Amino acid sequence: MTAVEQFTDTRLYEEIQRFYARQMRLLDEGAVADWAATFTEDGVFAAQATPTPVVGRSAIEAGAATSALSLAEQHVRHRHWLGMVDVEARADETIVVRSYALVVQTPLGGQATIRFSCTCEDVLVRVEGHLLVRSRYVTRDDLAAPEG
Amino acid sequence: MTAVEQFTDTRLYEEIQRFYARQMRLLDEGAVADWAATFTEDGVFAAQATPTPVVGRSAIEAGAATSALSLAEQHVRHRHWLGMVDVEARADETIVVRSYALVVQTPLGGQATIRFSCTCEDVLVRVEGHLLVRSRYVTRDDLAAPEG
Amino acid sequence: MTAVEQFTDTRLYEEIQRFYARQMRLLDEGAVADWAATFTEDGVFAAQATPTPVVGRSAIEAGAATSALSLAEQHVRHRHWLGMVDVEARADETIVVRSYALVVQTPLGGQATIRFSCTCEDVLVRVEGHLLVRSRYVTRDDLAAPEG
Repeated sequence: MTAVEQFTDTRLYEEIQRFYARQMRLLDEGAVADWAATFTEDGVFAAQATPTPVVGRSAIEAGAATSALSLAEQHVRHRHWLGMVDVEARADETIVVRSYALVVQTPLGGQATIRFSCTCEDVLVRVEGHLLVRSRYVTRDDLAAPEG
Repeated sequence: MTAVEQFTDTRLYEEIQRFYARQMRLLDEGAVADWAATFTEDGVFAAQATPTPVVGRSAIEAGAATSALSLAEQHVRHRHWLGMVDVEARADETIVVRSYALVVQTPLGGQATIRFSCTCEDVLVRVEGHLLVRSRYVTRDDLAAPEG
Repeated sequence: MTAVEQFTDTRLYEEIQRFYARQMRLLDEGAVADWAATFTEDGVFAAQATPTPVVGRSAIEAGAATSALSLAEQHVRHRHWLGMVDVEARADETIVVRSYALVVQTPLGGQATIRFSCTCEDVLVRVEGHLLVRSRYVTRDDLAAPEG
């Protein structure tokens, strides 16, 4: 690896950290259209908790809007923390990001708890200079048996 | 953005991450004078939980000392985690940092829990080469209703 | 500090973040041999919870295997989060890393909680280009009284 590649690499890691900081905050603060715009038009959001993946930016936005409304009605705030981020830049210019995720839940006037502990695997692509999520697969630890 | 600006940018993000790592540890380990020294002399610490902002390094230190004593008397340890950090370097050379924060609380011999889930908005300035907090505004999720 | 040194520094911080992302995931997913290989052959793992340090890669692996088996039998998943990372590159080419650590525990079908809040102090060395842990000292907050 050359110095320039190393440099690009370090920049990419930092760019990805900021991307997630912004993306999660959009979701957590109910800006669902802006949040959905961080997925590609044909983006896929999949989780083992749901029977079929959600496909397409508008379907992803609709799902987030439903969740945001439900949380607002219950006066519950979610905060999505992503951490332990590993990045693999592939030869086809996609970027695979593997991370841990926590959903921290706080009811108005109540006690914060961990709603879910998850792992997240994203495929990111760069469109007109911006990172976008082409696919996301979320695995909840409470639904997945640990390896023996 | 030129390569040099990109480089500076990446360095700044890393510098800010280390700054918070040190700053939070100082607070959590009761080094309140050293912690207060990470604010400017005229620094402001505000939270929606307190009626008026705390202004000035010595008042900020006094507040932290009171909290540290109270936790020590209760044999409770706090750990402040900052994450999901986004950085905006402004033309006036101030740096706005928006982040999520968790206060993890552990009583001696007891169970760790999340005491508070918060968001934090800092304005950082550089004084003699060192980052300092000029203002901090902390919003607790349990006191703030989510947007509808 | 020259520009090149600053560059190396920023790269090191990013390299260390990725190192921990990979290392913790190996442990949490039960790949204990691969996890143990992130320690030096003469690596030391110490904690105030255990009477004597575990010394040597094979002893470290054996300890992790016992823990992994126990968790699998209980259908419990652990996720190790490292954060608030501070890095000190020493003149002798060792790297001291101080961090906070959370062990997030999720039983199959159950609720995620924080099992432990800890601090971690590692000494890393570079062997054939790769970072390895030469020593790790973990302090659990529930066993350590806060300073008065």
